[in-house]
Parts: sequence; structure tokens; C-alpha cells
Amino acid sequence: MYTVRVRDHFMIAHSFRGEVFGPAQKLHGATYVVDVEFRSTALDDSGIVVDIGLATETVHKILGDLNYRNLDEEPSLKGKNTTTEVLARTVFDRLVDAITRDALGRNGHAIESMKITLNESHVASASYEGRV
Amino acid sequence: MYTVRVRDHFMIAHSFRGEVFGPAQKLHGATYVVDVEFRSTALDDSGIVVDIGLATETVHKILGDLNYRNLDEEPSLKGKNTTTEVLARTVFDRLVDAITRDALGRNGHAIESMKITLNESHVASASYEGRV
Amino acid sequence: MYTVRVRDHFMIAHSFRGEVFGPAQKLHGATYVVDVEFRSTALDDSGIVVDIGLATETVHKILGDLNYRNLDEEPSLKGKNTTTEVLARTVFDRLVDAITRDALGRNGHAIESMKITLNESHVASASYEGRV
Amino acid sequence: MYTVRVRDHFMIAHSFRGEVFGPAQKLHGATYVVDVEFRSTALDDSGIVVDIGLATETVHKILGDLNYRNLDEEPSLKGKNTTTEVLARTVFDRLVDAITRDALGRNGHAIESMKITLNESHVASASYEGRV
Amino acid sequence: MYTVRVRDHFMIAHSFRGEVFGPAQKLHGATYVVDVEFRSTALDDSGIVVDIGLATETVHKILGDLNYRNLDEEPSLKGKNTTTEVLARTVFDRLVDAITRDALGRNGHAIESMKITLNESHVASASYEGRV
Amino acid sequence: MYTVRVRDHFMIAHSFRGEVFGPAQKLHGATYVVDVEFRSTALDDSGIVVDIGLATETVHKILGDLNYRNLDEEPSLKGKNTTTEVLARTVFDRLVDAITRDALGRNGHAIESMKITLNESHVASASYEGRV
Repeated sequence: MYTVRVRDHFMIAHSFRGEVFGPAQKLHGATYVVDVEFRSTALDDSGIVVDIGLATETVHKILGDLNYRNLDEEPSLKGKNTTTEVLARTVFDRLVDAITRDALGRNGHAIESMKITLNESHVASASYEGRV
Repeated sequence: MYTVRVRDHFMIAHSFRGEVFGPAQKLHGATYVVDVEFRSTALDDSGIVVDIGLATETVHKILGDLNYRNLDEEPSLKGKNTTTEVLARTVFDRLVDAITRDALGRNGHAIESMKITLNESHVASASYEGRV
Repeated sequence: MYTVRVRDHFMIAHSFRGEVFGPAQKLHGATYVVDVEFRSTALDDSGIVVDIGLATETVHKILGDLNYRNLDEEPSLKGKNTTTEVLARTVFDRLVDAITRDALGRNGHAIESMKITLNESHVASASYEGRV
Repeated sequence: MYTVRVRDHFMIAHSFRGEVFGPAQKLHGATYVVDVEFRSTALDDSGIVVDIGLATETVHKILGDLNYRNLDEEPSLKGKNTTTEVLARTVFDRLVDAITRDALGRNGHAIESMKITLNESHVASASYEGRV
Repeated sequence: MYTVRVRDHFMIAHSFRGEVFGPAQKLHGATYVVDVEFRSTALDDSGIVVDIGLATETVHKILGDLNYRNLDEEPSLKGKNTTTEVLARTVFDRLVDAITRDALGRNGHAIESMKITLNESHVASASYEGRV
Repeated sequence: MYTVRVRDHFMIAHSFRGEVFGPAQKLHGATYVVDVEFRSTALDDSGIVVDIGLATETVHKILGDLNYRNLDEEPSLKGKNTTTEVLARTVFDRLVDAITRDALGRNGHAIESMKITLNESHVASASYEGRV
């Protein structure tokens, strides 16, 4: 199995609903340093899993739609607790959509699975991984 | 699959038995920077894998039982070569025990597997992963 | 010159005033991973710059006063653009106050200068350093 | 499952064939910081996955055969696009060969799978993992 | 003293002249992960050292002029041994030029000194720092 | 001012004398990931601060004299509290001695100052810097 990983980040405000979150129920924020891993069992004729230029651009666009926002007021996330886990899944789903719409070109369709990791500090992160 | 990771550390003295260890047969020591990954296929109603507050506290307590010790004189590790691999397994087993005793609360029981990584320097680490 | 460094973090929401900030004029947020460096030309009789337990605790308390907040509504920062630079200076000033009030114990007064670095992502940080 | 990871690096020049590579079609270069993970379901009697001394030495020798080279002129890579993915696979294959030739000693044969990650910058890496 | 740091990278091929370089006399290459630190004793009215958008863009352009090149054939570096030290100085000098040409806007002229660090692997780096 | 930095590590056992150290008064241990910075205002004719091969070798030898030891029984450290600060100074002094004995070759004598940083975990380090 081959994996290609690219890194980018976004910075948001949000708050959580539920006593389990303690002081994080108040409006606060986070930088998420995001690692996106693309996986495939085979390489294409050029020797790559994915066009890393398109991959970087596509990830940047998806994170750009969240960057510099207050997620509590983001229509597309309405009613969701935007935990790190939920945001990892959100990025995953949007990337699957982009791949379906050919954003990664032809060899994007050879991607079998992805793992999205959101690093929220030097001591915590959350990931979602699944088949494309 | 969702993963949540928390990081902490502990600092110990120990020595190894066996020629394969060369100079590490003498009493020396290590800082282990520990990454604990909790994995689950689903999130709870709050949108989390685990209460990260309880998880951080529980990991800190388990590492605290090893921290600032000479492992050669630790009754609970008697007769063991406390290699990085063995210590990763030790932390795993103690965390499984803690989950069984409800240390992570109700959603702790939704954790399906864990991976414990002990980083012993900038160039080496060891992990143990398994089902809970 | 000796330096001791400790690391901690805080997570906040805020917005900036001024066209130079572009989309960061909207409410967003950040994780700041904070490095505090304490400097002294000499060590005390125990061979340390500062009691690292007290230093860690004091830094944690100062960052705790900012953690999980919307800085736009923080009375102590009223009228300020809470840029990374300004926040580095804020942490510096509060730490100088704490040292003056003996928070670091007697050898806290031997600290000659400090540098506070706020890492806001994997690609950007800001610092303030000065004499105590 | 146990994993042991060691890190080393190598520095090479190369160029790529194919329009997908854009400016990287010109002769350029890279530092690859390499993480090699050795995996086994059981530890040997000493409590280890592999003799980390032999593992470090073997990895260093394999990377040394690539280090300080222009890969475009490397006979063993003739006709290949030496992408990060391809190089990860190359290191994997050479390490399997070395294990077969007893380079990791007797317990090298207990290694069930490996993952080779080549970090090419702070924002990109590629891996190959497979059964030994 | 305030410092703002931004990070970017470039990937080049080159060779060195001189026996001291051993095998690095052959054509090889490197990824340089570059940290640029801008320093000023005062902040402007917006609370910043420099417009980080312009700073990031300017650094990216300067590194882009070196990226994906064989430095042995780069006219602007003719006759130079392009060691990490020399390249750190080259980036510094080009950034001073850019500041002089208003690339960082008005507050770019408030920058008093800079430090350029080129990280060439996980175990080595070189820097040049000086007054602007 | 030019700086060259190399990284290595050592792993030791020790204990501290003094109530300020709390549980660290017991025998425990640490991995120290060591950054050595060599500084000079000018480069030699080859475009380097120091022969990085000799520098790496010399640092490795000095750390090797401490590696895999119980510092409480180390004659050369007798009567010292081997805090991170004290060990940073110890490495500094031994490196000055080595430079004096030509270990870094002729251009070793052009080194004007050094900074030695011992990273003891992901959240703490200590340094000593001074003129050579």
C-alpha cells in the first residue's frame, strides 16, 4: 500500500454544546494543522499515487472554505458539534466529493482510502479514515 | 474509523539483560514521549470518541505510576526487560484495565482499539496496538 | 547564559481591526503553542535557573486566564488588536508581574530576561523578548 | 501488533519525466528523512521486535547506497521515475532483501510487515507498506 | 524585541568544491525548510511587526527563484560553493533587497534585523542573521 | 553572524539532591536530544563555519562519554547536581576543550560562540551559550 501525505492548516472560532466539554462550551478557537493521506495499492505510469499539485490545491480550497470562520454560524455545519473528530470527517467527506468531481484528475479515482488528521495542539489530534 | 490522540511523557532509569543490548545493559535512562491513540468506528451524541479530559487524566495517572522511577526495582515489572516495546504494552494493558474500571466514563467502552507509541528520542520509537 | 524553556498552549477566538488583516478581520480563532524561555547568567546552588515546577505552574495559570476565551470580549485586552505579537507581549508582561509577586520563588528574581514564543501553526510564530 | 521505528536520512539529485511534474521535470534535489517501521505480533525472549542496533546499521547502509547521488545516473534505478513513492518502495524492497540475507539476525525473520516513510519537506511525505 | 517567523521550503540539486565535503563533492541535492525571522523593537499601529501576508509572499517568491534548480548552473550563484551557510546568506541578501524595494510595504522598513535558518534534515541546519 | 547546528542524543540515569526537585530526587532518567550551535561572523574559503563531518563526530564522541551511564556514579561529575542546565554547560566545556585540541580542525578556531540545548521532553529544554 502506498500513501502520499500533504499538510496545510486552518484557523477557526467555535463553541461546543454538552457538559462534557467544560470550559470549551464557551466561544474559543483553534488552529488545525491538517495531514491528508491518500492511499492506493498501485502507482500510475508516472510513479505517483496522485498529482501532488492538484492534491495540495484541492486540500487548500477545502480548508479555505472553513478558514477564518466562526463555525457556530457556518450554515453547512448547522446543528453539529464541530469537534476535532467531526471536522476530520467533514474534511474527509468534502474531499471524497471533490475526487468524485475529478478535482484530483484521472488518477484521483485510483485512491482507495484516505486518512485526515487534525492536529489541534502539540499534545492532541483527531483523525477520520475510511474508504473513498 | 475515528482516532483521538493525546500526548504525555515519563522519565525513568533502567537496565537491560541480554548481550543484544550492548552498552544498554548498564543502568541508564530515558524520556518516553507517549502518544495514546483511541479508536472507534462511531462518535457518541456529543460528536466525540472519548472525553478527552478523562482520557488525558487517565493517561497522566498511568504514566505517573512509572515516572521518576528506577524500573529495575519496580515490583510490578519484576523479571521483565523493560524495553520500549514492553513498556508500550504495559501502558496498553494498564489503560485497558482503567477503561474496564470506567475511568474513561461510559463512552470509554466504545473504544475498539488503541495504539500506544513511546518516542524515546528524535530517531527511535516503539508501539503496541491491539483491540480493547 | 543559561536558558530554561517550558511549553504549554491555549486556544482562543478573536478578530482583528485593520485592512491589512484581510479575512482575519472576521471572527476566527487559534491554538497558540507557547514556549517560555527563562534566562540567567548563573545557576543557583541546586544547579538550576528556576524551579521548573513553579515555572510550569505559573505559565499554565497565566495561559489559563486566556484559554477558551473570545479575546474580543476580554476586559483586560479591551481596545487591543490581539495579534500574535501583542499576545506574546501580554504573556511576557503578566509573567514579569508574577515574578515580582514571587510566583517563581526566590530564584525567580535571578531571571534576567525572558523570551515568549507563540507558535500559531506549523508555518508561523511570533515572539517577544526583553529584560525582566 | 508491535512496531519499532528508526529514523535516518539521505540527500539526492534527480529529475522527473512527465508533464504532471511541472518544474520538477528539471534537475533538482531533495532531503528524504526516512522512518522505517518494523512490525511483529510477538516479541522475542529479550522483549524486542528487532535488534535495533542491526536495524539502524542496515537502514543506514541501504540509504548510504543512495546518499549523495544523482539518481538520474544510478544504474539500479535506470528507467524509473524516482518519485518519493517509488523511492519508498525501493527502500522497502532492499530492506526485504537484507532481511532475507540475515542482516537483522535471527529475529529479523519474525518481522511480518514494514512501512517506509520518506518525509521530503515539512508539508509532504510518501510511504510504502507491505508484508515482508 | 519582537520577532515574527514564517516557514517555507525549496528543493535543489548542487555539488561542492573542496575535499572537506567528501562524498558531497558529487552532484546530490537537498530540501531546505526555511525559517525567516523578522525583528523589530516596536509594533506598528495595527499591532504587527510586518504584514505577514506580504512577508509570506515575498519569501515564497525569493525561494521560488531557487526552487527546482541545479544550483551548479545558476548564473546568480556562479563561482560560489552553495553550502547551507552561503544559501542562508543569499536568502538574507535577497530579502534585504526586496525590503528596500518596498516588497513588505511601509512597515517593512521598521524591520531592524532578520535571521534566516535553512533546515537541511532532522539533524542539521545553518543560519545567517544580521541587521537590515 | 552564521550558525551551524547539529543534533544528536544521549540517554542517562541520575537523581537530584534538594527538596526543590520533589520526586526527581529518586533515581530516574532522561533522553537528552542535543542541539549544538556553532557561531562565527565569517565563513572560510569553502563557504562553511565548520567541517560538519568533524563537528558531528566530535559531538557524538562527547555525548558518547555520557551515554548509557548512571551519572550519579560518574567520576567526572562527582558532587554535581546533573540538572539539564548543568549538563548543557558540561557539554559546552568539553566541546571548548575539544576545539582547543584541534578536534574541529583549523576552522574550529574561527568559532566565536556556541549554544548547547538539551531537549529533555516535548515540553522542556535547557541551554548554555557562551563565547569559546
